[in-house]
Amino acid sequence: MVTELRKRLFAELDSIVLVDPHTHINPLQPASATLADILGYHYFTELAHSAGMAKTEIEEPGLDPREKVARLVENLVPLENTVQYSWFVELSRELFGFEEDRVTMRNWETLYDAALARMSGPDWADQVLRQSGLEAVFLTNDFDDPLTGWDTRVYVPCLRTDDLVFHLGTAGVRDRLARATGEEVSGVASLRRAIGLLFEHFVSHNARACAISLPPDFAPKKVSDGRAATAFDSVCAGGGQPDERDQRALANFVFWMLAEYCDEFQLPFDLMIGVHRNVYTSGVFQGKDLYDSRVSLIQYSDLFNGFPSVVFPVSVLASVTNQELASFAWIFPNVITNGHWWYSNSPAFIEHDCAARLETVPGTKQIGYYSDMYKLEFGLPKFRMYKRILAKILAERFVVDRGWTEQQALDLGRQVLRGNVDRVFRPAGL
Amino acid sequence: MVTELRKRLFAELDSIVLVDPHTHINPLQPASATLADILGYHYFTELAHSAGMAKTEIEEPGLDPREKVARLVENLVPLENTVQYSWFVELSRELFGFEEDRVTMRNWETLYDAALARMSGPDWADQVLRQSGLEAVFLTNDFDDPLTGWDTRVYVPCLRTDDLVFHLGTAGVRDRLARATGEEVSGVASLRRAIGLLFEHFVSHNARACAISLPPDFAPKKVSDGRAATAFDSVCAGGGQPDERDQRALANFVFWMLAEYCDEFQLPFDLMIGVHRNVYTSGVFQGKDLYDSRVSLIQYSDLFNGFPSVVFPVSVLASVTNQELASFAWIFPNVITNGHWWYSNSPAFIEHDCAARLETVPGTKQIGYYSDMYKLEFGLPKFRMYKRILAKILAERFVVDRGWTEQQALDLGRQVLRGNVDRVFRPAGL
Amino acid sequence: MVTELRKRLFAELDSIVLVDPHTHINPLQPASATLADILGYHYFTELAHSAGMAKTEIEEPGLDPREKVARLVENLVPLENTVQYSWFVELSRELFGFEEDRVTMRNWETLYDAALARMSGPDWADQVLRQSGLEAVFLTNDFDDPLTGWDTRVYVPCLRTDDLVFHLGTAGVRDRLARATGEEVSGVASLRRAIGLLFEHFVSHNARACAISLPPDFAPKKVSDGRAATAFDSVCAGGGQPDERDQRALANFVFWMLAEYCDEFQLPFDLMIGVHRNVYTSGVFQGKDLYDSRVSLIQYSDLFNGFPSVVFPVSVLASVTNQELASFAWIFPNVITNGHWWYSNSPAFIEHDCAARLETVPGTKQIGYYSDMYKLEFGLPKFRMYKRILAKILAERFVVDRGWTEQQALDLGRQVLRGNVDRVFRPAGL
Repeated sequence: MVTELRKRLFAELDSIVLVDPHTHINPLQPASATLADILGYHYFTELAHSAGMAKTEIEEPGLDPREKVARLVENLVPLENTVQYSWFVELSRELFGFEEDRVTMRNWETLYDAALARMSGPDWADQVLRQSGLEAVFLTNDFDDPLTGWDTRVYVPCLRTDDLVFHLGTAGVRDRLARATGEEVSGVASLRRAIGLLFEHFVSHNARACAISLPPDFAPKKVSDGRAATAFDSVCAGGGQPDERDQRALANFVFWMLAEYCDEFQLPFDLMIGVHRNVYTSGVFQGKDLYDSRVSLIQYSDLFNGFPSVVFPVSVLASVTNQELASFAWIFPNVITNGHWWYSNSPAFIEHDCAARLETVPGTKQIGYYSDMYKLEFGLPKFRMYKRILAKILAERFVVDRGWTEQQALDLGRQVLRGNVDRVFRPAGL
Repeated sequence: MVTELRKRLFAELDSIVLVDPHTHINPLQPASATLADILGYHYFTELAHSAGMAKTEIEEPGLDPREKVARLVENLVPLENTVQYSWFVELSRELFGFEEDRVTMRNWETLYDAALARMSGPDWADQVLRQSGLEAVFLTNDFDDPLTGWDTRVYVPCLRTDDLVFHLGTAGVRDRLARATGEEVSGVASLRRAIGLLFEHFVSHNARACAISLPPDFAPKKVSDGRAATAFDSVCAGGGQPDERDQRALANFVFWMLAEYCDEFQLPFDLMIGVHRNVYTSGVFQGKDLYDSRVSLIQYSDLFNGFPSVVFPVSVLASVTNQELASFAWIFPNVITNGHWWYSNSPAFIEHDCAARLETVPGTKQIGYYSDMYKLEFGLPKFRMYKRILAKILAERFVVDRGWTEQQALDLGRQVLRGNVDRVFRPAGL
Repeated sequence: MVTELRKRLFAELDSIVLVDPHTHINPLQPASATLADILGYHYFTELAHSAGMAKTEIEEPGLDPREKVARLVENLVPLENTVQYSWFVELSRELFGFEEDRVTMRNWETLYDAALARMSGPDWADQVLRQSGLEAVFLTNDFDDPLTGWDTRVYVPCLRTDDLVFHLGTAGVRDRLARATGEEVSGVASLRRAIGLLFEHFVSHNARACAISLPPDFAPKKVSDGRAATAFDSVCAGGGQPDERDQRALANFVFWMLAEYCDEFQLPFDLMIGVHRNVYTSGVFQGKDLYDSRVSLIQYSDLFNGFPSVVFPVSVLASVTNQELASFAWIFPNVITNGHWWYSNSPAFIEHDCAARLETVPGTKQIGYYSDMYKLEFGLPKFRMYKRILAKILAERFVVDRGWTEQQALDLGRQVLRGNVDRVFRPAGL
């Protein structure tokens, strides 16, 4: 019976201790303080807003956490069908002892108080990690993060580079860069020195990846120092909107330089491809971004050809790009499929995308999943969602369709869940 | 046993009385007069033609209905695999007492006569509605439709605006507009008055939506009155092919104005995105249109941002655009997913697209299905096809995969089948 | 029980003797000489390389076949999850008596020797064909192939035209054309004569198709003789890079002329749409090509409209184009869906794409599968993979979902597997 087989496989997969290779955890406050931190996650606020809740209700300045939760719970009813809502219920049941199937105006206060009691415990974050079967989580650090004050073997630094590539024209970004590196950035040479110093800083603090999110129309090209110098002057001059071609040239120049440093420092370069920022201009916090699915990995051919020694774990935002991702990972030794990102992080898409990868990409070149979470409590339900789908695919498409043994299926599951994270990112001390 | 569960869910869903929120029914002749009206549906003529039947055989002037059916039945054999053919068999069995699985040269005449007898009854249209579980159907009316002569609570008017946006340069269209409104359209101001009068006319006759089908390269932008005036003069001058930029500017101007009136009159604006007209130039009637699936909803960002109070039920022609539709509906409060249109109205696509919507879009923001039918007899098999797939998804992905109760699953099914039609379109008298 | 039903359907489908309508078999050496010919297939070398094996290890000049196999087997471990690996195991078991589930460093030599013994038999190729249930395979012949030395009823010639369309500017190609036809090509008129002679040659040798693979940005347009003459002179002048517009004009001119000759000689014109050549520049032999999935069949509207009597069996490289293919085949009488090509030739994609075709395209207009193989041994596992998926779709979506009988399902399976190959390509003597 396939349903039973799926359950057996899931139970085994769920017992593997994992490393989460991409999150937005703040290592100084990794877990939630109240249920408002949970329901404040953009997946809930944006869906509640989309279903009719006013933004002002959600983002009222100085709003008390308990009141915020009360307001949001009232507006969750239209979302009860979503998989995002199921994350909330599952984490409430597993982490806070909640025993019902829906969080309602009738029962939310009990849940709130139970959560508050546990979150207030001295080692809540560690408890959550343990209960979630996670022994380390990767961070996404601003380039000027001092990277001190926590155990970098558990909370592993990654260098986020969006600001450097896309916002270097902003004086504030250049100021942060100067303060972080002691290097006043006035042109191409000082920029290269400054970014080199960032890499040294990050690698010396145990960083295991460089990461960036990219708009669908980005197509990396090598830019000469001369062209970059002109572009730098134009973009960083201040006063008026700089020429779009100069902006693009500078972005390309910095991006290419990051790849060069990844090569030098042997850091994987996580590419998260396809997001358009601020599409819904009146959206709630972090609920404004969307995408144009007309993007192709062919835009990255020069990059993949140009840096054969850099490993590129690639995430795509739209499921229609997944076949290209699988095919590029099948052909290019340095392209790795990486998780199921954001708008593709729901069962129907994961099932389709994961099956295609498992069937055509070498088993060693697939990072199964990352949580992308902002608070530790989400690791458990998100990974479980993925593990259930993985178990379904392994049961239906490998054991039933291809006659694999359960053990073979589990070995493949273990490889994409854990083995490849160790192989690709080599987290220290694990 | 999942198969049994699917059947139970289907039976419950099939008992819900529905409103069909988009059809091309002629309210003065809503049902078929002979089986030729059934087999004359473009889904059959275009497939028969594609499989080898000459267009002249199908569209011979003055062709007797019985002879037309005889010719088409002979050419249905190559289509027996298609889901469209299954609509024909199912409606024949349910509505006309047909008892076989295939309509052949051996049995078609019996069917023809049985159909003719029932269609000739005095209340056939009402019988079909009743038997199909439909209590109202939305129309797609030309802008100059007088909207009289039928019960608009059962046959609900909708203002179709394709001609206004894309064919205003045709003198005939401007003449029809003048006759319908008494407003001689000679420029931007009179155009605005005329279209305002259309909205008044439609709303006063119980219209519940404005609707338009759009080519894949359409990207609505606000156009100033001044620019529109120039464009109007260029496009409507007659004599020679007008400048393409002027045509686009005028189309954008009219489209934006329609959205303004939808706002003022509180009408939902149905967008049916992605069709290229007249691609197969020698095709049969209504069998010439195809598409370019390279379209993105990002083209509509300005519109969705610009009209927060207008509800946009959006249909996309290609399944590859469905994830964008789901994501935009998840983020934008005014975007609603709307049915499974035309080339995506077949089980494999519906199953994939519907599952993704049910998992990620608030349950209140999904119009499950519309029939798009030209004759009432098609409502029954088309909705049943959808309800079977919906039952399959609810059984497999909600009850089995997510542990829902059957009642929860049915509530969600009811919501997307009926509840949201009432909520979004607020049909009068229901 | 659906699993049992699938097995019954598969067994029946697997007993049908087939014609493989597209391969790259060399008719003078159709089968493998050693296991190195099997593992030298690009599907294995490119995946092994992608998983870390050095290209120099694979492509070392003068490498002994046994040593090559030893090296590759060692590097297959990371690919054991792939469906491509399953082809290798299945053909080893069925054709060479291999009895294990994995080919390893421990057991490969036994397999190598067993394979060698059978391959050395006098009628190995015939044995493979018989055991694979194939009675004929289509070839892909260079335009200057003499087409002699084999039975063209078993190894059916097809005229491959990539060189003529895309590389006529290369002197070597024009030289080959002159030698093959005795026609010195110096302009439009002689080019037309030469290509006409190729068609005569091929048709007189039993050719049953003209074929070409096309990049995603190709959009065929009719080009006048005058424009073509200018383009020919520019492209074939030698000396320097010719103008890109001239190259495109000449490619379009030759392509259109091929369609004209297909019309005259009543040859189907296989279009294989979407490949970018040499994307991964350091890839192994035949492992460098990828694609841009942003392609639309709308680019081919003029062609499909312009040649109503030419049959176009169309293959698309990316699954995201499959819905367009199904829709175009549903509307255009001369468009046929053709197999599951290359990067879409894996179960998850085949299942999705095949289901959509079976539901919406006339059953007579679908070529179910071709192997695309270079050596005969691959026909068996590739066709079986397809037949298992076909059986799954017929069981789940036709027998269970639509209430078909097993016999109806088998008839449809037979039609797409064999009947339509006969109908569309009319192979001689069968």
